Amino acid sequence: MWQLYQFPLCPFSRKVRLLLGEKGIGYELVRESPWEKRDEFIDLNPAGRTPVLVDAERGTVLIESAAICEYLEETVNQAPMISGTAVNRAEIRRLTIWCDEIFHAEVGEPMMRERMVKRLVHRQSPDAGALRQAMKAGNVLLDYLDYLLDHRTWLAGATFSLADLAAAAHISVADYLGGIDWRGHEQTKRWYSGLKSRPSFRPLLSERMEVISPPAHYDKPDF
Amino acid sequence: MWQLYQFPLCPFSRKVRLLLGEKGIGYELVRESPWEKRDEFIDLNPAGRTPVLVDAERGTVLIESAAICEYLEETVNQAPMISGTAVNRAEIRRLTIWCDEIFHAEVGEPMMRERMVKRLVHRQSPDAGALRQAMKAGNVLLDYLDYLLDHRTWLAGATFSLADLAAAAHISVADYLGGIDWRGHEQTKRWYSGLKSRPSFRPLLSERMEVISPPAHYDKPDF
Repeated sequence: MWQLYQFPLCPFSRKVRLLLGEKGIGYELVRESPWEKRDEFIDLNPAGRTPVLVDAERGTVLIESAAICEYLEETVNQAPMISGTAVNRAEIRRLTIWCDEIFHAEVGEPMMRERMVKRLVHRQSPDAGALRQAMKAGNVLLDYLDYLLDHRTWLAGATFSLADLAAAAHISVADYLGGIDWRGHEQTKRWYSGLKSRPSFRPLLSERMEVISPPAHYDKPDF
Repeated sequence: MWQLYQFPLCPFSRKVRLLLGEKGIGYELVRESPWEKRDEFIDLNPAGRTPVLVDAERGTVLIESAAICEYLEETVNQAPMISGTAVNRAEIRRLTIWCDEIFHAEVGEPMMRERMVKRLVHRQSPDAGALRQAMKAGNVLLDYLDYLLDHRTWLAGATFSLADLAAAAHISVADYLGGIDWRGHEQTKRWYSGLKSRPSFRPLLSERMEVISPPAHYDKPDF
């Protein structure tokens, strides 16, 4: 049985969980708070980051969400999420990286730092300016997703893919932390509403991170 | 003919160039300075980052170095660089991401910001404290590479792989900018010396970035 080391608001772990769910792969959750820098976790992953996917029986340790997703894609035929021509696959990977790096750096990471890490670790109040800047950046990045969804059925093209899972994972964390202003983003809102209704997404939406409550609309498919 | 949008000290472009070189794929260089935020380049890649690999005749535009490397690996059989079992491939990808994210964030990015961007764009002097911190971080990260090379022939295992190309690309940029103290890193130094001697690496080592000179040892395979 796979064990996934993660915490509820880790967007990279959410991406892997959505992929595991879509592919129908069973797994157990292991709670890991990377900011605690637990020795045993650093031994497992010297970079100290979640997610890590472990099969203790086989001695398999998979690290870095992108490497984990590629592994699952290569080893499980069901529900292919990096499919199509080589050019299609490059576009799926481009947008997945866009979510993991650009969206995360400009929106997810500052929201997590201000509203989660400061509260849980440093017992500090969030910086209002940093929150405003993250929401403003999120607004611009959601415009880009609106643009893509104006021209395509799914984010990377005609097919549902890892790019959709990655975007939903990152948006869900920012949304939980009150970082998404949905006004004026009808295309992305409609697409996200569909994602929220998928069986792979339901368990994530019902989870809560200690101390921090999401806004009322967070887990509603119609919002 | 492929055209690669890049600048000489972009580590992600260097990784792609090493892979193109190893696979024997011809390409032209197009100089792009992403900090200029040129409109035509933003049209090509909304994220505004190098490298971008373009085949104008076929209308193919490939964005994000990880997506480009996977594309080249999928479409060109020669010199496979993400090979072996699914677990081997996951390890190659983990270490490639480790270089692209951890090494870059802690060493490459601060070295580039302090010694390149500040000089070329802001006409400022580097911050000595930031440089010291990057070199200190580099020392710790090179210890990890030493450890890997104590146990393995190549970084990701028994086979020369994309992880070696990625590490060489990132180290070469930090080394150009005077950010690597090689003392005490005999394993990594021996490995890097072998990398520097490869035909794929020679063209990169002979290039210079305007205004900025590398240290004397930079392009010498024996250093």
